[in-house]
Amino acid sequence: MTHKIAILGASGYTGAELVRLIATHPAMQITALSADRKAGQSMGQVFPHLRHLDLPVLQKIEDLDFTDINLVFCALPHKTSQDVISTLPRDVRIVDLSADFRLRDAAEYEKWYGNPHTATALQREAVYGLTEFYRDQIRSARLVAGTGCNAATGQFALRPLIAAGVIDLDDIIIDLKTGVSGAGRALRENLLHAELSEGSNAYAVGGTHRHLGEFDQEFSAIAGRPVQVRFTPHLLPANRGILATVYVSGDAEEIHDTFAAAYEQEPFVTLLPMGETPSTHHVRGSNFVHIGVTGDRLPGKTVVTAALDNLTKGSSGQALQNANLMLGEDETAGLMLAPLFP
Amino acid sequence: MTHKIAILGASGYTGAELVRLIATHPAMQITALSADRKAGQSMGQVFPHLRHLDLPVLQKIEDLDFTDINLVFCALPHKTSQDVISTLPRDVRIVDLSADFRLRDAAEYEKWYGNPHTATALQREAVYGLTEFYRDQIRSARLVAGTGCNAATGQFALRPLIAAGVIDLDDIIIDLKTGVSGAGRALRENLLHAELSEGSNAYAVGGTHRHLGEFDQEFSAIAGRPVQVRFTPHLLPANRGILATVYVSGDAEEIHDTFAAAYEQEPFVTLLPMGETPSTHHVRGSNFVHIGVTGDRLPGKTVVTAALDNLTKGSSGQALQNANLMLGEDETAGLMLAPLFP
Amino acid sequence: MTHKIAILGASGYTGAELVRLIATHPAMQITALSADRKAGQSMGQVFPHLRHLDLPVLQKIEDLDFTDINLVFCALPHKTSQDVISTLPRDVRIVDLSADFRLRDAAEYEKWYGNPHTATALQREAVYGLTEFYRDQIRSARLVAGTGCNAATGQFALRPLIAAGVIDLDDIIIDLKTGVSGAGRALRENLLHAELSEGSNAYAVGGTHRHLGEFDQEFSAIAGRPVQVRFTPHLLPANRGILATVYVSGDAEEIHDTFAAAYEQEPFVTLLPMGETPSTHHVRGSNFVHIGVTGDRLPGKTVVTAALDNLTKGSSGQALQNANLMLGEDETAGLMLAPLFP
Amino acid sequence: MTHKIAILGASGYTGAELVRLIATHPAMQITALSADRKAGQSMGQVFPHLRHLDLPVLQKIEDLDFTDINLVFCALPHKTSQDVISTLPRDVRIVDLSADFRLRDAAEYEKWYGNPHTATALQREAVYGLTEFYRDQIRSARLVAGTGCNAATGQFALRPLIAAGVIDLDDIIIDLKTGVSGAGRALRENLLHAELSEGSNAYAVGGTHRHLGEFDQEFSAIAGRPVQVRFTPHLLPANRGILATVYVSGDAEEIHDTFAAAYEQEPFVTLLPMGETPSTHHVRGSNFVHIGVTGDRLPGKTVVTAALDNLTKGSSGQALQNANLMLGEDETAGLMLAPLFP
Repeated sequence: MTHKIAILGASGYTGAELVRLIATHPAMQITALSADRKAGQSMGQVFPHLRHLDLPVLQKIEDLDFTDINLVFCALPHKTSQDVISTLPRDVRIVDLSADFRLRDAAEYEKWYGNPHTATALQREAVYGLTEFYRDQIRSARLVAGTGCNAATGQFALRPLIAAGVIDLDDIIIDLKTGVSGAGRALRENLLHAELSEGSNAYAVGGTHRHLGEFDQEFSAIAGRPVQVRFTPHLLPANRGILATVYVSGDAEEIHDTFAAAYEQEPFVTLLPMGETPSTHHVRGSNFVHIGVTGDRLPGKTVVTAALDNLTKGSSGQALQNANLMLGEDETAGLMLAPLFP
Repeated sequence: MTHKIAILGASGYTGAELVRLIATHPAMQITALSADRKAGQSMGQVFPHLRHLDLPVLQKIEDLDFTDINLVFCALPHKTSQDVISTLPRDVRIVDLSADFRLRDAAEYEKWYGNPHTATALQREAVYGLTEFYRDQIRSARLVAGTGCNAATGQFALRPLIAAGVIDLDDIIIDLKTGVSGAGRALRENLLHAELSEGSNAYAVGGTHRHLGEFDQEFSAIAGRPVQVRFTPHLLPANRGILATVYVSGDAEEIHDTFAAAYEQEPFVTLLPMGETPSTHHVRGSNFVHIGVTGDRLPGKTVVTAALDNLTKGSSGQALQNANLMLGEDETAGLMLAPLFP
Repeated sequence: MTHKIAILGASGYTGAELVRLIATHPAMQITALSADRKAGQSMGQVFPHLRHLDLPVLQKIEDLDFTDINLVFCALPHKTSQDVISTLPRDVRIVDLSADFRLRDAAEYEKWYGNPHTATALQREAVYGLTEFYRDQIRSARLVAGTGCNAATGQFALRPLIAAGVIDLDDIIIDLKTGVSGAGRALRENLLHAELSEGSNAYAVGGTHRHLGEFDQEFSAIAGRPVQVRFTPHLLPANRGILATVYVSGDAEEIHDTFAAAYEQEPFVTLLPMGETPSTHHVRGSNFVHIGVTGDRLPGKTVVTAALDNLTKGSSGQALQNANLMLGEDETAGLMLAPLFP
Repeated sequence: MTHKIAILGASGYTGAELVRLIATHPAMQITALSADRKAGQSMGQVFPHLRHLDLPVLQKIEDLDFTDINLVFCALPHKTSQDVISTLPRDVRIVDLSADFRLRDAAEYEKWYGNPHTATALQREAVYGLTEFYRDQIRSARLVAGTGCNAATGQFALRPLIAAGVIDLDDIIIDLKTGVSGAGRALRENLLHAELSEGSNAYAVGGTHRHLGEFDQEFSAIAGRPVQVRFTPHLLPANRGILATVYVSGDAEEIHDTFAAAYEQEPFVTLLPMGETPSTHHVRGSNFVHIGVTGDRLPGKTVVTAALDNLTKGSSGQALQNANLMLGEDETAGLMLAPLFP
């Protein structure tokens, strides 16, 4: 059976990445694409790297017919996303890639995003889309909320450790480096090649990045008590890739063992041998996560490093992984592409 | 049926690219890998981006058993390649990615490569591996010689025009820009990030680049008389991608029509609408070639631009395309991956 | 004596580059800076790399007092530039970095820039600012028109050859590669890091780039008859640097000798030994031009390569060189900075 | 008076950077250059960006005449450096850029560098070259030991805080990102453009990087008791620049005030307004350090960020700053070049 797929917001990077991945999926067919400001154009005009594909023309959302659609990927900006999803037919499954349904608490959402949530019933219904940790709920969910790409990376490096109680919950620092595509195809001065190439800087320093809302929610839920981490993202002069360097108090061997047990059966999460460190190069364009553990010279201190591709495992690949579960397909279908190196 | 595949010289970039592509091929299985200096290591140690794959350990060539091997990809340096291929069993099909069998004339080979050819019988037997133009011979060949990556790009931009007689054969210039992976994983000062990033320069200026041997051979054969082009390669601060800007004397409409006819049925060659120009971005990591045609303000002068990925269509993708033909598989099997952008 | 300097349009890259260069100039002081949309901000806010300098606050042009200003650098967009310069006091010397006064013919200006010229008297008065070839006129000029950065590069590679009659005037091709800062600090999708990094493409193919107006004007004037070149610019994934690869019909030795004679006394133009080729790396951030000459394997054909930094020698450095002449200072004052490598 | 300067090891990046800086120094003249493997070549052959300079030919060290030399910059590898410096005449002043004289304790040196120190008398005599904190000793020193580039960055972010007692000495983490030129012009696979561009990874994780020896020595000396920090360096896909993100326990206001007092008179150290963060872009090619302070959302936690250019302030610029002091020149002579941006 071939599932009919719609992608809303197909003119952004996550939309294009979905098309790239679904193009070779054995059981999915893209039958509708929306992009409001580029309605009427072909996908090949907006993204010439996809010109070899036979795809529907871009349309305005209000012109789409959802009758035969089995699943919608919603790659719209937050705020727009909640408005649009509220109007979709109830029998359509939805994977949302925006921030709108990541936080379960309406007040937390407003605190981090600055606007009140206008679809709180949907918000309560949504399942958090970090596949490896929410599989069962995702299978039966109508609406799955894709995670933040930074939030995903930090959680791969910390969830099993918090769950197992092997680290000090009050001494966690996530120093994260991210490629520029995480900011989307936005026309902002700091995203220009001339401003970014050959340099690096921190941003949203001191606990102001929105993905902290996800860390707070998830880590506290696992721990059963409030957990707040320190988190500093940095912009890398690279297009794809996130590297998280996580500083914890805990024993390196115990941490490595905990990861080994947690990720043993996971098709996309690779734990490196003790002391090795991952590189964003080695996951680029793929749905894989590489995790490294190294003990510090200071006893009881450990560094966990995690690398993934923000557009794939951090966003569109994760979304497809969730869609596979929701549609009863093999979880890895369309996602076993090897990374592109060099 | 699953074909058993060996890759010789698997520790270089073209070897790794072959593994990446074959990993999702429906009818091929890699059963032997060689890398003399890295024998005993796993592919995942040499190329961590391939660590998720279940692959044979790297061995020395002399330790490989070719009994059940159906096809060998030979990704060794030139000169080594002819020595090794001379020793392979006669019932094994071979796709060579080196320069050793591209030139049919032993004197030409020695002129461009500086050493006498030591396997001239094989040299005579080899079929030139530019798939789109040698399909029938490739299907039945025992030994196919993969083309130079620059040579492939220039030929896609010129072969149909020379064959159709629509351009002046004595006024052809190929100005070519190439990413650094074309030089392989060699430890040379000019390939260091610090020496290459943020800069560009021409090299092998004035008609000294070895791929001219292929241009001379192929273009003269098509024209039925000697054809010599001017050719200047440039190093781009990018890892993958070749862009050829080709200056010809001929009518743009006629040239565009000629390409349209020549490439109409080709699954991997896309002719852009008149006046549009390709970008290496839009073919990265894929087996596609994009070709653009633009008339100059000077009457009778035309610019042809062609872009492909040197490691894929320019080398390992082309090799796999040839192998598909040789083994009776669909020519596009394993090769319809969309480009990676951004 | 210290000359009082104003820079109009200081919030763009050429404005910032002027400040960088003048900062260590022994006889100039910046006493006024304009940037309409950023009026009220400090230069350090707009360009944090200049925060160590003691500079006047950015103002709107209409709020500037030109009473004590000796020389104005006008780094405004074309069209705006002619309007503003028309209003400046007659006793102020002006170096304009826009395209407004490069073309001496009003019809040519309108043809290439699409709008009629509204300051044709100034246009007639302006001196073309390619210092090495217009020194005497520049010394006494009130208004000097800085050249296009691509136009400068091509002219360094061709003017002496056309003047000496050593090349075929009807067979000239300029294939040019340029870094992204030449496009300015503009918010355009194709200038984003994610769209440009790791790729390359031609643009304005077929004779449509505006700098052709300068080539036509200058080369025809030197030759005493119409000369039209073919010219294709390409975007490099690099911030600074232009590399021109120029294909000519002419004898390499004669060409090299002609350059040697023409540039022997030039402090900023370096002719490389026969057969060597320049790199944009080796001129980055400096006012130097490197020129290479290589004979082709085809008799009578030669490749000339030229490299310079578009923001320095191609724009702001050239402007300062001209200002030095206009103010009676040493032509090289403030301009002998070595390139930044790596 | 013009001081006569020799540079030993001029064929590496720090040697070239010294030449670049000294080229415009008002009171220094380079009269001897050594590079053993490139002896007999000109500096312009080894570094074409310096071809405009009139420099002595590269020689072997044993062929140099030190009779008239006032000061030697020694840019040799560690271990070689101690051997060579031992043989220099006693009346020559020396700034060493290697690691050989940074650690005052011979056992510590052997622990971090793996070989016993063979010039322990010189080691005891050497002054640690972090100019801002050792000015008086440097002025009168015969031998000054340039600091590690990472070590310099971390110390600018921490020394005043440790001295003032405003942070918890047992809770310091330095997460550092560094450009590739810090590794020198070495032919190593991980420094190739194809392996580094578009990616990032941590290295020397867990307390094994040699610059920790400097942190231990200096921070403990300031505190008057052992201080050990956690330190993780990361490789950036950029040629120049170090960004240190330092996590401390302490009050942000108090920390900002402490920096303000410590750096108020420093010509090269700029404290940004509270909450702003530096970028390596904004110091590239210059001798400036930018420091930012931001309070975390967690009370009592603060993030300090520091950016400098590893080849300039982190190495050759620092060396020149020290040489200026040693020779009685203005400390900033030759060093006020503005950063190169973009």
